[in-house]
Amino acid sequence: LPYKKRETDEHMRAIAEEVFASETKGEGVRDEISMFEEQDDCPILKQEMAYHLHTEEDTEKRWVLVLLDTPTYLEVPDFQRVAIIGDYASGVTMDDFELSCKGVYRALTIREKYMRLAYQRFPLTTSQYLRDIEGEPFKPEHSVQPVFTSPPKEGEDPFNTKCLPENLSWVARMKDGVIYVYKDAAKADQHKPIENMPTPHYETFIDDMNFLIALIAQGPTKTYSHRRLKFLMSKFNVHEMLNEMEEMKELKLNPHRDFYNCRKVDTHIHAAACMNQKHLLRFIKKSYRVDADRVVQNIKGKDELFANLNLHPYDLTVDSLDVHAGRQTFQRFDKFNAKYNPVGASELRDLYMKTENHIDGEYFARIIKEVASDLEDARYQYAEPRLSIYGCNPNEWTKLSGWFNKHRVFSPQLKWMIQVPRIYDIFRGRNFVPHFGKMLENIFLPIFQATIEPHTNPELSIFLKHVTGFDSVDDESKHSGHMFCTKSPKPEEWDIVKNPSYTYYIYYMYANITMINQLRKARGMNTFQFRPHCGEAGAVTHLLASFMTADNISHGLNLKKSPVLQYLYFLAQIPIAMSPLSNNSLFLEYAKNPILEFLKKGLIVSLSTDDPMQFHYTKEPLMEEYAIAAQVFKLSTCDMCEISRNSVLQSGLSDEEKTHFLGADYLKEGPEGNDIRKTNVAQIRMAYRYETLCYELNLIKEGLKTD
Amino acid sequence: LPYKKRETDEHMRAIAEEVFASETKGEGVRDEISMFEEQDDCPILKQEMAYHLHTEEDTEKRWVLVLLDTPTYLEVPDFQRVAIIGDYASGVTMDDFELSCKGVYRALTIREKYMRLAYQRFPLTTSQYLRDIEGEPFKPEHSVQPVFTSPPKEGEDPFNTKCLPENLSWVARMKDGVIYVYKDAAKADQHKPIENMPTPHYETFIDDMNFLIALIAQGPTKTYSHRRLKFLMSKFNVHEMLNEMEEMKELKLNPHRDFYNCRKVDTHIHAAACMNQKHLLRFIKKSYRVDADRVVQNIKGKDELFANLNLHPYDLTVDSLDVHAGRQTFQRFDKFNAKYNPVGASELRDLYMKTENHIDGEYFARIIKEVASDLEDARYQYAEPRLSIYGCNPNEWTKLSGWFNKHRVFSPQLKWMIQVPRIYDIFRGRNFVPHFGKMLENIFLPIFQATIEPHTNPELSIFLKHVTGFDSVDDESKHSGHMFCTKSPKPEEWDIVKNPSYTYYIYYMYANITMINQLRKARGMNTFQFRPHCGEAGAVTHLLASFMTADNISHGLNLKKSPVLQYLYFLAQIPIAMSPLSNNSLFLEYAKNPILEFLKKGLIVSLSTDDPMQFHYTKEPLMEEYAIAAQVFKLSTCDMCEISRNSVLQSGLSDEEKTHFLGADYLKEGPEGNDIRKTNVAQIRMAYRYETLCYELNLIKEGLKTD
Repeated sequence: LPYKKRETDEHMRAIAEEVFASETKGEGVRDEISMFEEQDDCPILKQEMAYHLHTEEDTEKRWVLVLLDTPTYLEVPDFQRVAIIGDYASGVTMDDFELSCKGVYRALTIREKYMRLAYQRFPLTTSQYLRDIEGEPFKPEHSVQPVFTSPPKEGEDPFNTKCLPENLSWVARMKDGVIYVYKDAAKADQHKPIENMPTPHYETFIDDMNFLIALIAQGPTKTYSHRRLKFLMSKFNVHEMLNEMEEMKELKLNPHRDFYNCRKVDTHIHAAACMNQKHLLRFIKKSYRVDADRVVQNIKGKDELFANLNLHPYDLTVDSLDVHAGRQTFQRFDKFNAKYNPVGASELRDLYMKTENHIDGEYFARIIKEVASDLEDARYQYAEPRLSIYGCNPNEWTKLSGWFNKHRVFSPQLKWMIQVPRIYDIFRGRNFVPHFGKMLENIFLPIFQATIEPHTNPELSIFLKHVTGFDSVDDESKHSGHMFCTKSPKPEEWDIVKNPSYTYYIYYMYANITMINQLRKARGMNTFQFRPHCGEAGAVTHLLASFMTADNISHGLNLKKSPVLQYLYFLAQIPIAMSPLSNNSLFLEYAKNPILEFLKKGLIVSLSTDDPMQFHYTKEPLMEEYAIAAQVFKLSTCDMCEISRNSVLQSGLSDEEKTHFLGADYLKEGPEGNDIRKTNVAQIRMAYRYETLCYELNLIKEGLKTD
Repeated sequence: LPYKKRETDEHMRAIAEEVFASETKGEGVRDEISMFEEQDDCPILKQEMAYHLHTEEDTEKRWVLVLLDTPTYLEVPDFQRVAIIGDYASGVTMDDFELSCKGVYRALTIREKYMRLAYQRFPLTTSQYLRDIEGEPFKPEHSVQPVFTSPPKEGEDPFNTKCLPENLSWVARMKDGVIYVYKDAAKADQHKPIENMPTPHYETFIDDMNFLIALIAQGPTKTYSHRRLKFLMSKFNVHEMLNEMEEMKELKLNPHRDFYNCRKVDTHIHAAACMNQKHLLRFIKKSYRVDADRVVQNIKGKDELFANLNLHPYDLTVDSLDVHAGRQTFQRFDKFNAKYNPVGASELRDLYMKTENHIDGEYFARIIKEVASDLEDARYQYAEPRLSIYGCNPNEWTKLSGWFNKHRVFSPQLKWMIQVPRIYDIFRGRNFVPHFGKMLENIFLPIFQATIEPHTNPELSIFLKHVTGFDSVDDESKHSGHMFCTKSPKPEEWDIVKNPSYTYYIYYMYANITMINQLRKARGMNTFQFRPHCGEAGAVTHLLASFMTADNISHGLNLKKSPVLQYLYFLAQIPIAMSPLSNNSLFLEYAKNPILEFLKKGLIVSLSTDDPMQFHYTKEPLMEEYAIAAQVFKLSTCDMCEISRNSVLQSGLSDEEKTHFLGADYLKEGPEGNDIRKTNVAQIRMAYRYETLCYELNLIKEGLKTD
């Protein structure tokens, strides 16, 4: 029962508040860790051996690193391994080492707990080490997997409502911002939810969060994490030097598969900007030619619409369209958002990029289907577009799914995500919602209802089959000033115009997704993943909240600022969809993007486009993203194929598709989970990654042995 | 008579030899100018005003800059200009200033002379200032233009031999490495060439060269040029800050035209690598499927060919094809050259990428036509592929033009160039040629003959109509150790196995192209431009040789190392085809490429792919090149369209095509030569460029007034 209540640790809360206060000022933590900023690529031996006799005299606390027996896999060719020999203490004192290991261990168990609760993923290897540390046997049934809908079989209609499960008479109702499921209304009145659907415990969550806030600010753990990350970097550099040619040899001998025909998923892309600027331009011109007189707005024809805007579509160019992010958008998220309006006119956005308008979002559906058809032509490429649910009113889901079904916006190349903008303050300011709880209810209650009674809203039920997860979006650099703690008002009490904090949003989204997933799992339906935008800007605590709640994240740039979180993201192998071209226009120059560093250290990065309309020039935005990264960072083919493989793993592609694209054993970790014939990732690389993760986890195990 | 003999300046030759000697050691010059390397982006006012009263006291030598009366063009919108007010001496003493201006002036007249002689281009504006300085009237008829063949009219056959001029009975014969034309054999025996076909004078050329070698090493001129270039950089930065939005406004108001539909030419691409790796792979697989049994080598079928190579085309991948430049090729031109062989097998190169083999180069022709067809589909994109003539034997031209005609390798998107590898040493070593003169004769004599008697070799005559220029290619970082001077052996005497120097090659190519152009011009035929690879690596003297002889160059990276040459390339507006992705794989990391710096300073840069097979990932290599430059260097749309316009100007597209793509007045300089409706380059940008060039030329004029 890992989610039972625990004593609130007052000391930790105090530390957490202190850290939070310093973050609000935008200083503190950053300064404190600035000593870690300088690059230093000294070869490992030098770096690690320098400390190797450090604790020689201190016999009581001295420990010897038991070198892992390097496993031998049948299929991995011989390669040169980097081994550290001799007494070893990772450059920190024994006390600090043990302290760090304890903290890191607890952090990992926290994530493991919340992932399992929500049917999200946690690596088997890490779980096995955690059980090992606890002296418990590892039970494979403890590991959970999300459920995604398989693509329709040949001749099967993805919009067919016949296969929906029957309606139940259960009742879903919100309490304290979280929706519970009850047998009937009476049980709901007594708040006696259906059993076997455990909720995340609010106070435990805050305790866990406070513990983590304290941990990432803790000096010894920062030093330890920083050193480990530097080691990972140097180790990869040595690995690359020694084995690059061997890895390439594997790929050359791998028949039939190369970077072009290994599957890749655009893991982060907004539907409203999923076409490139040239495509949108062509579409506007074509739609004008083909049906100029059609009534597209309330009163006026399109002719009038363009006349009002004082422009003729024939004259329109990419320049006058003005949707591309230029130098003007750097560090200006506000200007960037304005770029969503073609020719600066929200009317055109409404006409072409909205699901709700006087043509029922027909153009938007058509343009998305054109993008999907381009992906089908390119083959091997998939995308996970985000559609918005705002939580402004409870009909949004019905309208969105109506659009989806009416225009049959389905393609095997697309896996749908729902993005929820964090703009409660705007809705409250305009009196659209009375409190934050109502917004949450508008977002989540319709899903519960459609899950309990699928036949009552068949269009929504069908749409939900094709939705794979939730995203949380907005400018992270805006700071709410609120700190999430036990004293925070409950969502139903949050009726001020101010926005709650990022963490508050994240917690309540996570809690409701957890409940939905348990309900849907029980009904044999697909589940949803939580995949928020996180660490693009703003406080590092965002990354902490996602560490606790998210299956995987988008951006993650700010992991650069917290060595502890970065090390934890590595140990928990949390996928990160990175978009260096988007960052280049908004927050960080291309060459400074940490994606190369993260990749080398073994974090699970994928490449994504974010907004092709704003950032990309060519017909194949995802290939443009890969090509530029390959050129600027001099990625090897193996690197690129590893990133592609990561993107498939991170994505909401179904088990069936992943099996097809990655191999039958894709759920296994290390080289035995890799089918080089499908992924074109060298087994040497897989073995390196696996052994490296085991080595780091083993260190933690060793650090906890002395207890 | 600007090419009459002049006294050899012994002093200058001595300096030249010294500079040459230090370059051979790979030190010297670079160190000497290293003081200019640090970046310094101080605003102009600060930079220029700091020296503004420098010579205040020195009334005799003081001079006041006469501010150019800013011209007002009807079509240029108001914009903010950067003006320097007050006394001014550019931060150098008057003596140094005058010395520098004198040197720069003479350098420009040298280039002007050699360009005119060879029907190559020199900017009108610069010519006008030179005449102004000399007190001579400027005569527009002094300015020459190359002649390129217009594309065939509707229904016209580009291979039609009927329109060839009649045969003459003239005789072409080589003397001292240069081919002359005579009325008949008797005149040839007496060496009495046809009049009105002036030759470059060998000793004058060497004098001019020695003068330039001394100039680029001269302290004051280096300082002056360096300061002017820094000023140009800062001035552009200020211009951009002040007018960026205004330029963009012009483009937004420009109907119908944007970056995507303004013409761009891939100004530097090798035919043997003009397809990308994926395209080549597809082609090999398809050709195998379609005609597997066809005899493609002397004795064996293709089946056998692949069997011998121990691979089946079905299994072939981009990885096993192994033609892409990876990290291994950086600073290794030798490894790079090996990448031209698919699967490392020269047999496959022979089969797919050669014009001469047992299928008469059919595959090579087909793959090039596929590339052309892709360009036709993309519209707005053109390319100038290079085909090789080695000079090994006199039949090469006949064979190459036979291939061209047989397979009808013509496309309006392609303008052909001939590349001559500088590998005499290899041919001599294998005894293919007795001396360097024979190599030159093999390269050039057939062209003279086909020009004199077009009907004797109609296929070659047709091919030459579609050839627009000559390139000189090879690894520039190889140093020959020979210095070109009056004592150098004549080509017919150069019978050692050692390669002559870059400059020696360049001079003899230039001299022969000059003679051909005069002959062809007299016969009403198209002329050829000299467009060597230059400044990719090696000594800066390469850039000096090209300054004297080349219409435009490819690469030009090393202009970074010589401020004087860089400033001269600016003043003479010499186009430079740059390939930052190629450089990134071979000589210089992407972010360090000087293209952005050159563009800002006003050098005429274009973007080109060099070898898509080795460097590019996407289906549209030229767009990939533009997209990456735009992203990494944050280019504005106006920057990108200016580069596109430069590429058309630099190219061998005919007058008719340039008029169509750039506007009727494209030969005029400044904003009146720009048709924004076709080029999408802001008139403000054009005015800025024009005024900036005039300002710099005016300075030189002022510097010479005190004489």
